[in-house]
Amino acid sequence: MRGVVQLSPELEGVQALLIASLALVQRRFADQLRTDLPVVNELCAHVERYHGKMLRPILVLLSGLAAHPDATHAAPESLLTEDHVTMAAVCEMVHMATLVHDDILDEAETRRRGRTLNALRGNEAAVLLGDYLIASAYHLCSQLASQDHALAIGHVSRVLCAGELLQIDHREDWSLDEPTYFQILERKTASLIAVACERGALISGASRAAAAALSLYGRRLGVAFQIQDDLLDLTGEEGTVGKSVGKDIEKGKLTLPLILHLATADQRERAETIRLIQSAAHPNSIAERASLADRLLASGSLARAHNTALDLVADAKAALETLSPTPARAVLERMADAAIDRSL
Amino acid sequence: MRGVVQLSPELEGVQALLIASLALVQRRFADQLRTDLPVVNELCAHVERYHGKMLRPILVLLSGLAAHPDATHAAPESLLTEDHVTMAAVCEMVHMATLVHDDILDEAETRRRGRTLNALRGNEAAVLLGDYLIASAYHLCSQLASQDHALAIGHVSRVLCAGELLQIDHREDWSLDEPTYFQILERKTASLIAVACERGALISGASRAAAAALSLYGRRLGVAFQIQDDLLDLTGEEGTVGKSVGKDIEKGKLTLPLILHLATADQRERAETIRLIQSAAHPNSIAERASLADRLLASGSLARAHNTALDLVADAKAALETLSPTPARAVLERMADAAIDRSL
Repeated sequence: MRGVVQLSPELEGVQALLIASLALVQRRFADQLRTDLPVVNELCAHVERYHGKMLRPILVLLSGLAAHPDATHAAPESLLTEDHVTMAAVCEMVHMATLVHDDILDEAETRRRGRTLNALRGNEAAVLLGDYLIASAYHLCSQLASQDHALAIGHVSRVLCAGELLQIDHREDWSLDEPTYFQILERKTASLIAVACERGALISGASRAAAAALSLYGRRLGVAFQIQDDLLDLTGEEGTVGKSVGKDIEKGKLTLPLILHLATADQRERAETIRLIQSAAHPNSIAERASLADRLLASGSLARAHNTALDLVADAKAALETLSPTPARAVLERMADAAIDRSL
Repeated sequence: MRGVVQLSPELEGVQALLIASLALVQRRFADQLRTDLPVVNELCAHVERYHGKMLRPILVLLSGLAAHPDATHAAPESLLTEDHVTMAAVCEMVHMATLVHDDILDEAETRRRGRTLNALRGNEAAVLLGDYLIASAYHLCSQLASQDHALAIGHVSRVLCAGELLQIDHREDWSLDEPTYFQILERKTASLIAVACERGALISGASRAAAAALSLYGRRLGVAFQIQDDLLDLTGEEGTVGKSVGKDIEKGKLTLPLILHLATADQRERAETIRLIQSAAHPNSIAERASLADRLLASGSLARAHNTALDLVADAKAALETLSPTPARAVLERMADAAIDRSL
């Protein structure tokens, strides 16, 4: 939970259950990665430090609670099963594999306040360790009671990679439009978050409708979360955010505030902004980045992007309204609010 | 089949069946990779040209024939199922994912006489496309009748990545010993080939004993195949081999002939060989490579490595003796011979 969301006292029961369950998830995660080869164990120990907010595992567990047919009358701790823990570890492992490979793509040097694997051990180890994480995730997923989960995880991994390929294909495309930007976000970020929610519900034996509601919640939350991430990359400071910032600009990735700004700018402003983006792309171009952020603030593009994220959070919470009111549902609602409440 | 093995007329029935089945495998492969994103389809079309000998699909199909309980009396074309075709496509896809990522690790510029994806489109596209191939393989594998196959493919993918990590951990380790070298080969090459054979047999409803015999065949064949590959990297020419050569030396990988040579050399010869390996590591150091190959030839290390591969081929063929004699078994035997009969 660490900082994702502040809970009021009445929700402390769910919080305690989550903390205990997340400890099991971390143990399953570590057990699954262990091998007879010390070199592999050592690399895995390094990436295990990347465990951050554990957003996806938390969503598997909370969705499993909120969508359970017995959600309103059974004790929450009786509702979570071994399969929930396994699925939570699978989602975290797929996510961590993408982080390890993303750091190669981004040439990032810090992640969760530690050095990235590619910076420490070279791109080769990072490519292979990411592959090892993916393979381990699928292997673990194939141990679940229903094969349907492995099919879903395989599918979402394809979608996720396709989204990242779409993103790099639009690198330095200063005409990137909103629909394409949202397609990229839906695929590369929202898809796995939606599956985490959906699978948590299905493992609980939830109705298709309840699982679909949670999937929609996850999808909207995921997009909101990514917009917030993009805002932080433009306006945040490394010390606060805990990972490299300014990477989107460096890699020629247009994000929502820039897309909104360019779409409404006149010809001259547009040309000047693109020039500024290009000069801000050089590492350590602090002044250019600050000037770009100022421009986005002045045109209202930062605020509009933030409002888009707020609307998505409202949609996410609305999707939960079909579920019975439970402490788990309340925590999911709070998490949606917290997703965009990280310091700008 | 293209060049893997020359068949005598009495085996032409199996050959025709293989050719027809491989066309289905290629179609399933292409169908599985297709998406709604043109950029992804375009990249996939490029790597589909990497289809080479289709060794792993052929082994799934032949094992499915040779280990089938009705192998001796039913028409071969009645023995292969949709699941054999799917598993063959899965094994090829996992293999191709490793090729795409290996080319990043090796910084290779040619593969199967075409330019590598990393050379053409950059490392980022290559990392992501490899991930897309792995995800697609798992997704396809989860569509098989039994979940046991997905578990096996997940497991072997972990073993394979761990083997590659072990290999890079021993880069420029001039004391690499034979047992560790064989551990690396067993994991990174033999494991997937063994699984291709085993799964082909199990899909046919073969006995555990028959599946184990084919798994052993694949394991020995895989190691023999990799030793031959390593020999070609030391002594082959790019025009003949069809891919970059000298890469093992460039990347500081000791292979069997070098390990055998260093293990038996006196102190002075050892020091000189290591110096020669280090200078041969620079690209285009043709003279140094030729001199190194001469030294390995003179000490008998090339011949000893080749003999090790021959012994493994004999073991592979011996493993097939428990199966009923069928045309499919005969082709598997010929393939074992052909594995080390590529031009040195």
